[in-house]
Amino acid sequence: MNTSWDDWFAERADARDAAGLTRSLVPHGPDEPVLDLAGNDYLGLARHPRVREAAAEAARTWGAGAGASRLVTGTLAVHTDLERALTDFLGWPAALVTSTGYHANLSVVTALADRSALVVSDAHIHASLIDAARLSRAEIVVVPHNDVDAVRAALTGADGRRALVLAESVYSVLGDAAPLAALVAACAEHDALLVVDEAHGLGLRGPHGDGLVRELGLAGHPNVVVTATLSKALGAQGGAVLGSPALVDHLVNTARPFIFDTALAPSPAAAALEALRVLREQPDLATLVHRRVAELGRALGVDDLPAGAVLSVPMPTPQVAVAAQAACLAHGVRVGCFRPPSVPDGVSRLRITVGAGLGDADWAQAVDVITRVVKEHTG
Amino acid sequence: MNTSWDDWFAERADARDAAGLTRSLVPHGPDEPVLDLAGNDYLGLARHPRVREAAAEAARTWGAGAGASRLVTGTLAVHTDLERALTDFLGWPAALVTSTGYHANLSVVTALADRSALVVSDAHIHASLIDAARLSRAEIVVVPHNDVDAVRAALTGADGRRALVLAESVYSVLGDAAPLAALVAACAEHDALLVVDEAHGLGLRGPHGDGLVRELGLAGHPNVVVTATLSKALGAQGGAVLGSPALVDHLVNTARPFIFDTALAPSPAAAALEALRVLREQPDLATLVHRRVAELGRALGVDDLPAGAVLSVPMPTPQVAVAAQAACLAHGVRVGCFRPPSVPDGVSRLRITVGAGLGDADWAQAVDVITRVVKEHTG
Repeated sequence: MNTSWDDWFAERADARDAAGLTRSLVPHGPDEPVLDLAGNDYLGLARHPRVREAAAEAARTWGAGAGASRLVTGTLAVHTDLERALTDFLGWPAALVTSTGYHANLSVVTALADRSALVVSDAHIHASLIDAARLSRAEIVVVPHNDVDAVRAALTGADGRRALVLAESVYSVLGDAAPLAALVAACAEHDALLVVDEAHGLGLRGPHGDGLVRELGLAGHPNVVVTATLSKALGAQGGAVLGSPALVDHLVNTARPFIFDTALAPSPAAAALEALRVLREQPDLATLVHRRVAELGRALGVDDLPAGAVLSVPMPTPQVAVAAQAACLAHGVRVGCFRPPSVPDGVSRLRITVGAGLGDADWAQAVDVITRVVKEHTG
Repeated sequence: MNTSWDDWFAERADARDAAGLTRSLVPHGPDEPVLDLAGNDYLGLARHPRVREAAAEAARTWGAGAGASRLVTGTLAVHTDLERALTDFLGWPAALVTSTGYHANLSVVTALADRSALVVSDAHIHASLIDAARLSRAEIVVVPHNDVDAVRAALTGADGRRALVLAESVYSVLGDAAPLAALVAACAEHDALLVVDEAHGLGLRGPHGDGLVRELGLAGHPNVVVTATLSKALGAQGGAVLGSPALVDHLVNTARPFIFDTALAPSPAAAALEALRVLREQPDLATLVHRRVAELGRALGVDDLPAGAVLSVPMPTPQVAVAAQAACLAHGVRVGCFRPPSVPDGVSRLRITVGAGLGDADWAQAVDVITRVVKEHTG
């Protein structure tokens, strides 16, 4: 029996195929002979022996899941230990751990903004912040990327409403940083709150990988709230919100995507906690990433080096981007490929994650393969 | 420096306090001397030795996190193995695993409905489905709980638009079941799609715990899509969508809360997979839960037994509910306490999760404590 839904799925699939935009999931095993420069395990901590063992030990100690939402009975000591470690590391008085970074952004924006609020949103923010703003039902003003004057102009229109500004410290696709100091100043002038997602800044910016907000001396600022993910540089899963105790209390009592969600499983929570300890002991992990970013940037002739670990290389078409990605993989190097609608400006690109997890010989081989393939596909 | 945000947090906190609705997080350790009848680990599988060990082993084998979103490079063989096991268990041709049950609902509703669609929503559905419907920006018609005629009337108003109906197989707070066969018939008449959340049906309904949809012979029906959580009866973390291959393909290509989210960590994925194996071998786990539900229901004088594992006991006020919960805990038994806004009808209640994880002596003690406390607080 065919429903009209089946017809609709088929139409949509045909349109994707015609545009060269069909994606599919490609599973891989635990020990592939491939150098991974596509994922977001920037510091190699997901596979660090201490982090793995902390994850394994937590599963044995606590069980496989938290068993309930945080408010019902799912708040385990490993969550509060992790929250304490995050406040210390990032320089805030309070933190709240969520099951994904997406939930962190959904929670903070929907708990702070409603129909009576204004949300000013950078044009390049992550899907989770876009969804969060939509879900809040606030009026949304999208401003051009990193345009502080436009943010200021939008805030002037707040007209007494509570106002939030949404930005990332380091942007995922283009790899550039936000002008955070200027954004905070604009928010302070207008009594607005800046929500900064440190998804791609945590572990990479700051003298100890403690993020761009702290690097700029903005941690604890009354007009700033930070969100973070535990699934990128910290190698685990989950998210967090950092701010004042009053903010965290407000989230615990009002943020639906926090209240009605099973707590983060013990294993990734313990892994993120151990990753923070490793990071404190080895602050040179971030330095290594930046050195490698500069090296690969030079080899590819990229002038503007990224603020974080992601080197973004524009490709002429989505099809060429896919072909270049396949050519790298054929030579044992996995890189990312971003195509519409995952790119803010419609330009397809290779997205190369420069990580600290590769040994020096593997890294040299990856640089060699990527530079050759990029030249062949853009020359 | 005090911003107007601080004032707003304080006002909101005062209002909560005045209404007796302030909540706070209470952490607990791994081996408390407390009988837990509050969480959603219905079958005791979160702490089953085989499930714990599968979680630990996956962390050692794969690392602590998946390292990337599913489409980029985060699809691990453990995800696809789990998807295959879920299709077999629940009787569908295709499945998609997500990082939380919340993400499963957000993904399916936002990928199927947009401004041009109609969403018909049962009044008691979970926050994740409510948020999903809002996020889709479809017109939303909320119908009275389990009112099939109202669903049919709402669908008559679809007027050629794609229409979704949102329901749960077993409702979380009141514990009652949806009239699924009648809802499916109404959807088939109107070419609509019924999204059924099996969060509280999986593991408890059906001859093998394979859910209420399968129990009623509706698995694979062209007008049905199922969502499920891996964090309740399966004891882990994550969610899943079950449906046709075309549906799953559509989600992979268009569902933002799936596409832009880090994949489920290996450890909870492997735990859910092992929990499914245990469940296949021990179908009597669900039978034990139902027998205990009937026993406790008799002891408390509850006439309408719940369809799942949650026995819901109305309390006169939020304050009495909190006091009764505290009295149970003082006698070593943790039960849940649901107050506004977590209850669909505004009635505060004890929420008692009857699990298979307790030994017989512990179970008898829990029944004794709960019946005494409930009598003292409602008599």
